[in-house]
Amino acid sequence: MKKKEIGIRCWIDVNGARFFGPGRAELLQHIDEEGSISGAAKKMGMSYKKAWDMVDHMNTTSKKPFVISKKGGEKGGGAELTETARQVVQRYHQLTDKLYTVIKKDADLLKLI
Amino acid sequence: MKKKEIGIRCWIDVNGARFFGPGRAELLQHIDEEGSISGAAKKMGMSYKKAWDMVDHMNTTSKKPFVISKKGGEKGGGAELTETARQVVQRYHQLTDKLYTVIKKDADLLKLI
Repeated sequence: MKKKEIGIRCWIDVNGARFFGPGRAELLQHIDEEGSISGAAKKMGMSYKKAWDMVDHMNTTSKKPFVISKKGGEKGGGAELTETARQVVQRYHQLTDKLYTVIKKDADLLKLI
Repeated sequence: MKKKEIGIRCWIDVNGARFFGPGRAELLQHIDEEGSISGAAKKMGMSYKKAWDMVDHMNTTSKKPFVISKKGGEKGGGAELTETARQVVQRYHQLTDKLYTVIKKDADLLKLI
């Protein structure tokens, strides 16, 4: 029996450059959980520089920043998501869910194959 | 003013390998218009080998072939789409249209950026 599936990918471009997609959604989620960019990068097996560049690109491209640095404190700093970032991540997941719902309804297309 | 847009890509995998997507949909459309794999490859700036490999993969993976060779005749052979291929291409475009409709409805997500 063949395993047949419809795949999908959804992203946001700003001025023709990739601004947001599944990788950045995951990165932000890890920053939220780990409380730092370095912790999130480690979780994703990504270099700190790459993670920082992604965060910097989101912060400087969007009207409002996505990630802000927390200085000092018990853990000696870290990073946290802004309300804007939370909203974008949430809306992105909601949109992706809707797209998967459409795909599921059309799954009988796979019977042709 | 920033140009912000939501992008999407949709494909079909069979046994974990890419079986169908925007490139193959375009290739099939060109084969239909040009009446040959070589003509379609040329239109897409693709090597004949690459186009042939794509066609061969679709033909041998699917229950029914997607492209059949026409031998002889005025033009000395060529290729044409099967009814199965036409249906898959049509259903794929219909699905893609539905996905774009969902995206359009959620476009206010871009206001956050």
